[in-house]
Amino acid sequence: MRKVGVRPKRIIQRVIGLDLGGSQIRLAFIAPKGQRSGEILTVPVTNRDLKVVLTLLVDSIRRLQSGGSRPSAVGIGIPGFIRMDEARIYRSPNFPGWKNVPIRDLLETRLNCPVFVENDANAAAFGESWVGCGKGLSSLLYLGLGTGVGGGIILDGRVWHGREGLAAELGHITIDPDGPVCGCGNRGCLESYSSATAVVRSYIEKTGRARPDLTAQDVNLLARRGNQKACAVFVELGRALGIAIADLLNIFDPERIAIGGGVAEAWPLFHKPMMDEIGRRAVRPVRLNEKVRRSLLKNEAGMIGAAGLAYRHLGVKVF
Amino acid sequence: MRKVGVRPKRIIQRVIGLDLGGSQIRLAFIAPKGQRSGEILTVPVTNRDLKVVLTLLVDSIRRLQSGGSRPSAVGIGIPGFIRMDEARIYRSPNFPGWKNVPIRDLLETRLNCPVFVENDANAAAFGESWVGCGKGLSSLLYLGLGTGVGGGIILDGRVWHGREGLAAELGHITIDPDGPVCGCGNRGCLESYSSATAVVRSYIEKTGRARPDLTAQDVNLLARRGNQKACAVFVELGRALGIAIADLLNIFDPERIAIGGGVAEAWPLFHKPMMDEIGRRAVRPVRLNEKVRRSLLKNEAGMIGAAGLAYRHLGVKVF
Repeated sequence: MRKVGVRPKRIIQRVIGLDLGGSQIRLAFIAPKGQRSGEILTVPVTNRDLKVVLTLLVDSIRRLQSGGSRPSAVGIGIPGFIRMDEARIYRSPNFPGWKNVPIRDLLETRLNCPVFVENDANAAAFGESWVGCGKGLSSLLYLGLGTGVGGGIILDGRVWHGREGLAAELGHITIDPDGPVCGCGNRGCLESYSSATAVVRSYIEKTGRARPDLTAQDVNLLARRGNQKACAVFVELGRALGIAIADLLNIFDPERIAIGGGVAEAWPLFHKPMMDEIGRRAVRPVRLNEKVRRSLLKNEAGMIGAAGLAYRHLGVKVF
Repeated sequence: MRKVGVRPKRIIQRVIGLDLGGSQIRLAFIAPKGQRSGEILTVPVTNRDLKVVLTLLVDSIRRLQSGGSRPSAVGIGIPGFIRMDEARIYRSPNFPGWKNVPIRDLLETRLNCPVFVENDANAAAFGESWVGCGKGLSSLLYLGLGTGVGGGIILDGRVWHGREGLAAELGHITIDPDGPVCGCGNRGCLESYSSATAVVRSYIEKTGRARPDLTAQDVNLLARRGNQKACAVFVELGRALGIAIADLLNIFDPERIAIGGGVAEAWPLFHKPMMDEIGRRAVRPVRLNEKVRRSLLKNEAGMIGAAGLAYRHLGVKVF
C-alpha cells in the first residue's frame, strides 16, 4: 500500500550517447527527453586496433563522467553490421580488422554499467524520430550521405532490422543498372551517386583532372562559388537521391524521410533537382516538402539516437 | 467457475474469402487453418456499375452459402486504393466509376454479417505468409504480376499500410530512369517491364508488328515453343524483376519474397535471369533460392488472404 504524502523515490536516469567513427569518438550526456546536457567530448581515433580503441572508449567515457555521477547506461552507434541478438560487431568498414567483436560485453565488463549497441545509421534514424526532424513520428527513414550512404528504418517507433539484421541497406538501392561502379562492386547504387566519395569522383570525371586531396566539402565550396562543373555534380546527385526517395515513398508511405550525413551540407545545391525528381516519380506526390526533410540533429543524430535506444533498453518510455 | 466434465461450447467460425476482379468474382469458404472448404464459385463481371456489382456480390455470397450455414464474416480483396480506417474504396483501376465507395458498410447492410476489405495484393501477401509459400513467416513481400504490378508488405505478421494507406506500390520502383513509359506516366517503373501489358508491348516492339489481340499468355506460349524474340522478352523481364527484388532484399531483409499474378506462369522463362540479377545486386546474396519463391496459392492468394484477415478481424488467432 502506498503511503499518503510520501512520494516514491524518483530514479534519475542519465545516459551517455556515443558515436564511434573511424576517425573520432564523440560522446555526451543525453537527458531522458533527448536534450544534450553538457558539452560534446571529441576524441580522435588514430589507431584502429581493437584493444587501443577499447581503452580509448573506456577512457573517454570516464573522462566525460569525471566529477559527475556515473551514467545509467551507455548507448553506442557504430558503422557496420551489428548482430543485435549478441550485440557483436560482425564487420565494420571503418574497423576492417574487427571480426565478430562482442563489443557490448567487452565494454560492460570494463565500465560496469549497461551498454547498448546499434548501427550508426539506425541510431541516427531513431534520433531523428525521437527529437529530430521527425520528432514523435512513428515511421521515418534516414539516409546518411557520408563516405558511403547508410540507411535506417523506423517503423511503429522501432528500428527495423530484418531477418538477419541486414535491412536498411538504402545506399544500395539501384538508381540506374548501368550507372557508376559502387564500392560494393555493383553498378548504379545510390551510394555511387550520393556519397562523398561519389561527389569527388564525379567532379574529377567532369574536369578530367585527378586531384588527390580533393574532398566533397571542396566540391561543395566550388559549387557555392559558382563553378558550373561542381554545380552539375550536385544536380546529378539530387536526381539520383530523388529516385531513391521516390522508391522509398512508394514502398513505405512513411511519415518522414530524413537526409543527413556530411554531404547534406550541400542541401541548397541538390534540393531542387531532388524534389523535382521525387515529384515526377512518387505515385502520390503530395506534401513532399513535409515528408522529405534535412536532418535536424546533423552530426549529433547517431549519438542522440543511441542514447534514446539505451533509455528504452533501460525501460524508460522514450515515445 | 468452469464445471468439470462440461466442455465450453465451441463456436465454429466459417469465413468466405472473395476476390473482386475487374472481369470476375471468385469466392469460397475458407476454414480457420486456411484450407479451402468446398469449391470456388466464379461469377463473371460484365457490368462495372456499382449497383450492379453490389447485387452480384450479394447474390454470389448467398449462392455460396445456400444449403449451408451463414458465414461468420466475409473477407474481400479489391484492386485499388482502400481507405482502411473507413473501409472505403477510394479509387480502383478496375472500377473507374467508383469514387470513395463505403464498400464494407454497403455490404454489411445487405448481408447482415461482418465484412472485411483489403487491397487485393495486400490480401495476397497475407495469404502467402499465412498458408502459402511463406507459411508462418512474419515478414514477406508479395509482387503480383498482372495487368499492372501490385505489391503487398507483411511485417511482424501484419499488413504494412503506411501513413495514408499508400504503401507497397512496389510496381513503381524505378528500374531504369530512362526506361519504357509506365501506366503512371513515369519512365522505367517495374510495372513497365514486368506486367502483362509490358510483356505484350515488349514483344510487339521486338517484332515490329502490331497484333491487337495478343496476350501475355500468347507470348509465354511462343517462348515455350522456342520463339527467340518471345524468350528475350522474359529475359528482360527477369532482369528488371531481379533489380526490384534486390532493392527489396537490401531494404527489408525479409524472410521471403513471393512472386504471383498471371505473368508468374512464365516463371521458368524468367527465373534464371532474375536470380542472376539478384545475385549481383543483393548486398548479402545468401540463401536466395529460399528467400525468393513463386506464389504457392497462385490465383487463390487474394481470396484466401482476405479470409485470413477477416478471421483475424473476428479475433481468431491466425498465426
